[in-house]
Amino acid sequence: MSEASNAEGLRPHPFHCPAAARPVKRRMLQVQGAVWPSVVSLLWVGTLLGSVEAAEGMWTLDNLPRTALKSAHAFEPDAAWLAHVQRAAVRVGGCSASIVSEQGLVMTNHHCVTRCLAELSTRERPVKAAGFLARKPQDELSCTGLEVLQLQSERDVTAQVQAATQGLTGEAFQKAEDAVRAQLSRECQQDQAATKRCEVTVLYRGGQYVLQQYERYSDVRLVWAPEDAIAAFGGDPDNFNFPRWCLDVAMLRLWRNGQPVKTPVHFRVEPKGPMAGELLFVPGHPGQTLRSLTVAQLERVRERLATQSIPAASESRGLMHLLSQRAEPTRTWALQAMSNVENGLKVQQGQLQALFTPALWAMKLADEQSLKAHVQGKPALRARVGDPWADIERAQQSRRQLEQEVGLIAEGGAFAAPHFQYARTLVRGPVERAKPDGQRLREFSDSSLPMVERRLKAPTPMDQEFERERLEWSLTRLRSVLGPDHPVVRQVLGDRSPAQLARAWIQESRLHEAAERARLWDGGAAAVQASNDPFMALVRAIEPQARALRERFEAQVLAVEREAAQRLALAQFDRDGRSRYPDATGTLRLSFGTLQGWQEAGAEVPTHTTVAGLRRRHTGAAPFAMPERWLGAGAAVAADVPFNFVTNHDIIGGNSGSPMINRQGRWVGLVFDGNRHSLGGSFFYDPVLNRAVSVHPAVILESLKSVYAAQDLVQELLTGQAPDR
Amino acid sequence: MSEASNAEGLRPHPFHCPAAARPVKRRMLQVQGAVWPSVVSLLWVGTLLGSVEAAEGMWTLDNLPRTALKSAHAFEPDAAWLAHVQRAAVRVGGCSASIVSEQGLVMTNHHCVTRCLAELSTRERPVKAAGFLARKPQDELSCTGLEVLQLQSERDVTAQVQAATQGLTGEAFQKAEDAVRAQLSRECQQDQAATKRCEVTVLYRGGQYVLQQYERYSDVRLVWAPEDAIAAFGGDPDNFNFPRWCLDVAMLRLWRNGQPVKTPVHFRVEPKGPMAGELLFVPGHPGQTLRSLTVAQLERVRERLATQSIPAASESRGLMHLLSQRAEPTRTWALQAMSNVENGLKVQQGQLQALFTPALWAMKLADEQSLKAHVQGKPALRARVGDPWADIERAQQSRRQLEQEVGLIAEGGAFAAPHFQYARTLVRGPVERAKPDGQRLREFSDSSLPMVERRLKAPTPMDQEFERERLEWSLTRLRSVLGPDHPVVRQVLGDRSPAQLARAWIQESRLHEAAERARLWDGGAAAVQASNDPFMALVRAIEPQARALRERFEAQVLAVEREAAQRLALAQFDRDGRSRYPDATGTLRLSFGTLQGWQEAGAEVPTHTTVAGLRRRHTGAAPFAMPERWLGAGAAVAADVPFNFVTNHDIIGGNSGSPMINRQGRWVGLVFDGNRHSLGGSFFYDPVLNRAVSVHPAVILESLKSVYAAQDLVQELLTGQAPDR
Repeated sequence: MSEASNAEGLRPHPFHCPAAARPVKRRMLQVQGAVWPSVVSLLWVGTLLGSVEAAEGMWTLDNLPRTALKSAHAFEPDAAWLAHVQRAAVRVGGCSASIVSEQGLVMTNHHCVTRCLAELSTRERPVKAAGFLARKPQDELSCTGLEVLQLQSERDVTAQVQAATQGLTGEAFQKAEDAVRAQLSRECQQDQAATKRCEVTVLYRGGQYVLQQYERYSDVRLVWAPEDAIAAFGGDPDNFNFPRWCLDVAMLRLWRNGQPVKTPVHFRVEPKGPMAGELLFVPGHPGQTLRSLTVAQLERVRERLATQSIPAASESRGLMHLLSQRAEPTRTWALQAMSNVENGLKVQQGQLQALFTPALWAMKLADEQSLKAHVQGKPALRARVGDPWADIERAQQSRRQLEQEVGLIAEGGAFAAPHFQYARTLVRGPVERAKPDGQRLREFSDSSLPMVERRLKAPTPMDQEFERERLEWSLTRLRSVLGPDHPVVRQVLGDRSPAQLARAWIQESRLHEAAERARLWDGGAAAVQASNDPFMALVRAIEPQARALRERFEAQVLAVEREAAQRLALAQFDRDGRSRYPDATGTLRLSFGTLQGWQEAGAEVPTHTTVAGLRRRHTGAAPFAMPERWLGAGAAVAADVPFNFVTNHDIIGGNSGSPMINRQGRWVGLVFDGNRHSLGGSFFYDPVLNRAVSVHPAVILESLKSVYAAQDLVQELLTGQAPDR
Repeated sequence: MSEASNAEGLRPHPFHCPAAARPVKRRMLQVQGAVWPSVVSLLWVGTLLGSVEAAEGMWTLDNLPRTALKSAHAFEPDAAWLAHVQRAAVRVGGCSASIVSEQGLVMTNHHCVTRCLAELSTRERPVKAAGFLARKPQDELSCTGLEVLQLQSERDVTAQVQAATQGLTGEAFQKAEDAVRAQLSRECQQDQAATKRCEVTVLYRGGQYVLQQYERYSDVRLVWAPEDAIAAFGGDPDNFNFPRWCLDVAMLRLWRNGQPVKTPVHFRVEPKGPMAGELLFVPGHPGQTLRSLTVAQLERVRERLATQSIPAASESRGLMHLLSQRAEPTRTWALQAMSNVENGLKVQQGQLQALFTPALWAMKLADEQSLKAHVQGKPALRARVGDPWADIERAQQSRRQLEQEVGLIAEGGAFAAPHFQYARTLVRGPVERAKPDGQRLREFSDSSLPMVERRLKAPTPMDQEFERERLEWSLTRLRSVLGPDHPVVRQVLGDRSPAQLARAWIQESRLHEAAERARLWDGGAAAVQASNDPFMALVRAIEPQARALRERFEAQVLAVEREAAQRLALAQFDRDGRSRYPDATGTLRLSFGTLQGWQEAGAEVPTHTTVAGLRRRHTGAAPFAMPERWLGAGAAVAADVPFNFVTNHDIIGGNSGSPMINRQGRWVGLVFDGNRHSLGGSFFYDPVLNRAVSVHPAVILESLKSVYAAQDLVQELLTGQAPDR
């Protein structure tokens, strides 16, 4: 994930399709990676910085609130404990995960692998709908789009980056920073791109740079997934709500060289789950928080949510609602897309609601004024910091002018078919690969290229009818948003309608065939130029405008914001030191907390649900229908088995799939969601209402045993060893 | 229209369906009828109040800016001129119209009668798609849903209303005001409900009450409509844009007692159209402006647009996009619904964009502070006015809590099928008709009942597939917005899914049959109670909650706002006298202006388009495809015939169909749209950018002659007389 590059995305890899999101439970606003501690809770709860009582904070492992942990919980994690957590808590796609046996077994959320499940599904083997269990290692199914990253080491490189960017501003700053980061990554990674990944993460908005080296596992196989209907029981209506009954779990296995990977460092299960009052930890990879944006940036976020993001997602939802009534396989693709769209929409609506809360603005304004006053009061600091707020405010004007076009053209939101993203990767590949690493578009960096190539060549299935419909809609939106007289709209549409174009393009293109994509990738510039595939032609035709827009956006927005943010970080360190946690950036963090309910409309929401509650909520009509196996199992799973539970951990999208562990390093839960109050967590942590939602280990073990007859998997979880190995 | 009653609607008649809007070009925000002059342009252009130079203002005929008209244009309208305008400019549905011959010929926009066109369309006679021309009076087709209202007289009744409401607040105020208004209407109307309509209009937010008597024409027949493709050429992409080429015109005729109505008072056409620099008038019925809302109300409007209205409309747009690909007749219904949805969405997006303009807030705040200071400075005034701003702000908190539920349950947005609205009318009819007029729900007042009954009994066609799909979607939204555990959601859905319910209800209901509806209406309470139609059962089941919500909303929001607004009006009259125009309320107004282009991205937009431009814009793909007849006509219509043109008139939704006249009382244009800058017109008039868009009479006459071979109609327009009578 590293820092997301901008407002509409410029996503780190080129396969993102607007309406078919990556399998992240709570996709974040794609705003300039903001890395600054919360200003809100400070005013909100009036506690001192770093209080673990408030459960606030997504802490880096090298800067835990040790004093508070010790005084409140008598807990002092040692180096071994931290090293264990660092290795056993891993990243998968945009989600978190954990290693849970010595045989490379990895646990994450079902919703983190739905794309893989959909791709593996066939009429005969409907993996997503009916679930899947591999009884033997050789039955495990490859998830070609997934890779698992395990953090091996990290090193502070702030001094090197600062030396390279000293005194630069604007585009020059950005180019120098890109170059030094690429160089550091390359030196770290050397020629081991297939098994290592190095990247420089920006913390505290440029206050700190950290070089991270990951072990990269690219052969990831599906071991077990329950049925969609129980994994996402309650569907969109219950999403971000609690009480809740979701068996939102999937088991994967890491393979290398045709063997499961040996993983002596892993978390063993604690079947009893979390105890009342017990200190609990969530190691995970929260994707992005925006707690340190300036007021001007927050205003722009609100306006974009209201005028662009939410209307687009809402339209897509209406489209998917009807597409999901079509015959198979279109139905399955539409349902998958709808679940992503609905999830994203709920996140955005929660964020927008938070941004219509007057108290939030009062807090943000107060903190901004306090920092400005701090700078004004110290002439030497003032000379170095200048007025970053004004620079950032000017960049917001550029955002306002550019973001629609950037989203539609530079990011390809107007061409919502995977064919387009494949074509763009193919067209850009030879151009970018010819450049030195530090000068390429970020998604073609040496550390990203292996994944780019693997995804391009993977035999990912798609449904032509679904893609045609979605493409027609996105072309219609292009014309609707930019108007029929916009030069790119005129160029793309010519005398044809969106429907005519979508039909012709999807019919004529061969980019849905992995072999054709591999041929073009391997054929390089010559093959690319010779191709008359309609999507290749489209990408070539709009490439000058697309690149120009992206460059303009990077120069006028991203570079300005990034450089100004460094000066803001300087001011904030001067005021607060490192007593705060940085904004989430998709890298490993640790949150602390305990079991805790909350008050909703005057009533106490209890911390746990049980199997009995699931049976009461079952109506038989989706999304409130237990799958056949559960109905067949009758009372085999006891009514009092705990199902889901809530804690006060500070989490955000990207934390999905995180293990919840106790101080003994046993996992006691699997984080999969937050309550609806947690959606404002992008901007502030509210200790009174913000809650994380997890799957209880008991329901995982009990259902594996009694519903799925997966005795071997139960034993592997309990002992760390698969029985027959 | 009178004053719209609230934020989400509580529309004046019970037939409104969320996604099948009334045929008004620019549907307004349904916010408490705000009746206060613009504060913005005052700051914006720095001119004195009432300057006709600024072209701002929707003036009542009894309070024209006479001094400015005289000094700037040497124009002094006399009583005869005004009386002529008052009779010849009429209302039709939510639109404006004009009488244009002595034989009761009425001209309005095509988009104002699309619902009628859709209802008249059959496979053999696709009126909407292919257009229609009645060559003989007996061929004219009845538009059963339409009535034309012609203002006969008005009388100031402020003193009577104020006497009845003196000293009252909250609900008591509202009830007393309702009662006295109903009484005044009844006295005026007596027993002539079939041909007269009386209503008390609230101007200046309660500063003035006017009793208006209308002649009511209920037998309205279609004479001519061009093809959809030329009436709405450019479709949604060109909507609210200019340059433009829309033949957005339809001709109707008033009938009574089996004969066309004699209308000696009418506007004759001026075929040359408007002259450069010439003073031009738009008499029409602007629906609603919100120029006098308080800052707290505007904030709530913005939040609701962003979090409720636009997301809902966007979803509906995605749904309609796909539904419009189905087979006929579903396709036609979906296209009709989509065009309404897209139009509404563009309006709302324009409004929201305006509400994200910092300058607007600065202006509104400055004016509010100035008025507060004025009140503070005059103790006697202060004693009478109090703090209406604070009362209104509190009412906004109630809006925030209630508006979603009111929209979905009290207004029926969750049950988006005409069956539901029919059922509610049927269930409420006997209850309300048993009460005295002033105590009924407004939509059952004596003055509304004839239209209610006519609509209920009209054989309005509908498409079961379309209704089922839309209903399923709206039920899904109900659950999504209020959550599965909301008591009404539980009660309505029970153990069934939205899809199951929608299918069953639409299949089992007989309310799509006019005869069944008539039977239940005429059968009264006994028939209603005996009916086991699923929609009747649904309405009965949720009636207690629906009524309770409506009452709560009226007491906590509408009554508070209405009473506080009266005190605001008092303060404003004290400061400004009557030198300003009231906010639009759907009643007759006069706007002034001239031909004027504007600057767009540094380039001058010319005032006129011509037939040559239409031919250039024709691509052959909808919505940029001229219909067959136009293609067949070749060069019969000269390339230089003017098509559409722009003027600086201050108009808003509801002005659609307004004639534009010169000082001789000849019509020189037919208003049908505004440019996109005009969408902020709800909140302020911007003389630099805000433009009205009209059809030129030349293209109407030339196309009638050379494309539609409608020589008789040309003669009737030119001479005021149909040739064969």
